[in-house]
Amino acid sequence: MLARVALLGEIDARTFAVLDDRYGVLRMPPACDGIHRGLAACQVLVTNGVEGVTESELDRLPALKLIASLGSSADTVALDACRARGIQVTNTPGVLAEDVADLALGLLIAAVRRICVGHDFVRSGQWSNRRMPLTGSLRGARVGILGLGRIGSALARRCVACEMEVSYHGRNRKADANYRFWPDLLSMADACTILIACCPGGESTHGLISREVLSALGPQGTFVNVARGNIVDEQAMIELLETGRLGAAALDVFENEPHVPEALTALDNVVLQPHQGSATASARHAMSNQLIENVDAFFANRRLLTPVTDDFEGD
Amino acid sequence: MLARVALLGEIDARTFAVLDDRYGVLRMPPACDGIHRGLAACQVLVTNGVEGVTESELDRLPALKLIASLGSSADTVALDACRARGIQVTNTPGVLAEDVADLALGLLIAAVRRICVGHDFVRSGQWSNRRMPLTGSLRGARVGILGLGRIGSALARRCVACEMEVSYHGRNRKADANYRFWPDLLSMADACTILIACCPGGESTHGLISREVLSALGPQGTFVNVARGNIVDEQAMIELLETGRLGAAALDVFENEPHVPEALTALDNVVLQPHQGSATASARHAMSNQLIENVDAFFANRRLLTPVTDDFEGD
Repeated sequence: MLARVALLGEIDARTFAVLDDRYGVLRMPPACDGIHRGLAACQVLVTNGVEGVTESELDRLPALKLIASLGSSADTVALDACRARGIQVTNTPGVLAEDVADLALGLLIAAVRRICVGHDFVRSGQWSNRRMPLTGSLRGARVGILGLGRIGSALARRCVACEMEVSYHGRNRKADANYRFWPDLLSMADACTILIACCPGGESTHGLISREVLSALGPQGTFVNVARGNIVDEQAMIELLETGRLGAAALDVFENEPHVPEALTALDNVVLQPHQGSATASARHAMSNQLIENVDAFFANRRLLTPVTDDFEGD
Repeated sequence: MLARVALLGEIDARTFAVLDDRYGVLRMPPACDGIHRGLAACQVLVTNGVEGVTESELDRLPALKLIASLGSSADTVALDACRARGIQVTNTPGVLAEDVADLALGLLIAAVRRICVGHDFVRSGQWSNRRMPLTGSLRGARVGILGLGRIGSALARRCVACEMEVSYHGRNRKADANYRFWPDLLSMADACTILIACCPGGESTHGLISREVLSALGPQGTFVNVARGNIVDEQAMIELLETGRLGAAALDVFENEPHVPEALTALDNVVLQPHQGSATASARHAMSNQLIENVDAFFANRRLLTPVTDDFEGD
């Protein structure tokens, strides 16, 4: 059977098996191998959302009509080029929002209450000799959420339950949200001690969390990132954390992941995760199902379930 | 000035200074030193809630009328003996409930999403070579709360925000609680995958979390303890965790703290904390204020603010 689906990057074995069985899957060969005839028949490209889909990738797939991307953000896909070529793009939003929000809250509590520090304190036997110092608390904390999409909304609900005062920044005020809206990110950071980034990546948010924004959180401030590494000025963040001008950070994403700057791993006011936001068995299964359903819909000429929209708030 | 307040164990410097200034504080000398005349004048005993106040301690304080204990549980105080002697007991409930509930939720998320494992995974450089395995999720989780007092109620609210199904066990059904009540702890553990202990310690809860209860949670189950170490059969818990018959545990308290069994520190399905439940600067300050206000009320012949009640649900 001629493969009708091309694959860029790694996906889980089950998704691969289902798609291969139904449509035939061809792994994208390296570009340097020259023209690959099999690619001419592929109308669908499946990607894991980590590898970027560039224009030159599109050039190699003349029959391409759909890019089905795993994950909440398709910011690694050249969306403008896809639009110009009439290529549709789907992602897998919604099914991962609650899991990502859980992790964001867990990371926030871990940073403020120093859970990983306490864990090491016990394991290394230090508790036998002394008490661990008192920590900060979430009491009275004002939290600013960057990007009140599905993840941000799920997180806001959790923060309210923890009696935090929630506000948000995004491109637009949300009519159905009962939280304070800040049209300006820096002003929000000034008014908050906690900033949690849940926005998508891509051009519109690149470098949005600047040195000024992080400085505004201050020595008692905490920054949590479950969005994308490149929305932050990572070098400035490291300097502020090293010098105590930013209190703490909890980071699930990094500028050049899986590479994490050594300076970050050396700090004890930082909690680090290997991009685990949606990395639960149940979320990944649901994401896989949603991707397969989009591909099925395409080949059956049905309406796509989750086409990517250009929404700053993101999933 | 003759000291009117005796002190058992360590308290923070500020509480000591305030009480010493107002009433004079005498540290309890070791019993082996024989009769200490100064104790005869002490009508109040202040304790940190960790050291136990036994009957023989009471014998050394003939004028004792009030024991003011720091913390939510006065389970280390010989309450029956106090009652028989007409000695009142106060604790510092309420002001720490939200902080303890934050930590309980943070520990639960840390255990299920393996936050400390992920933190070490990044710091040790393993992420450069491979991906961390997928983890469990809170989606669809049924959580049973043992002790729906102030802490348990604050925690229940957080669990609902995380879309968990909440039920509880305690001595009595709570009229104002909209969660399912289980009159039997083992039945609740059977129906849940997560069990969080928030009850007070003392005789009524000693060993309540038995091998059977922990086994009922099962290989996918998670046990969180922010209550007291002696409510659990610690040895059984360790065996179940080592053999995978209990999935994970997150423990803020231990049977013989600060001693933690080596077997626990060796497990990677366990998150450990050095009794940090209320160990935030803000909670400890509020607890200190509440203790001082109780002592002030006693000496001014006013009604005590927070007398200990014999409530299984606890704070």
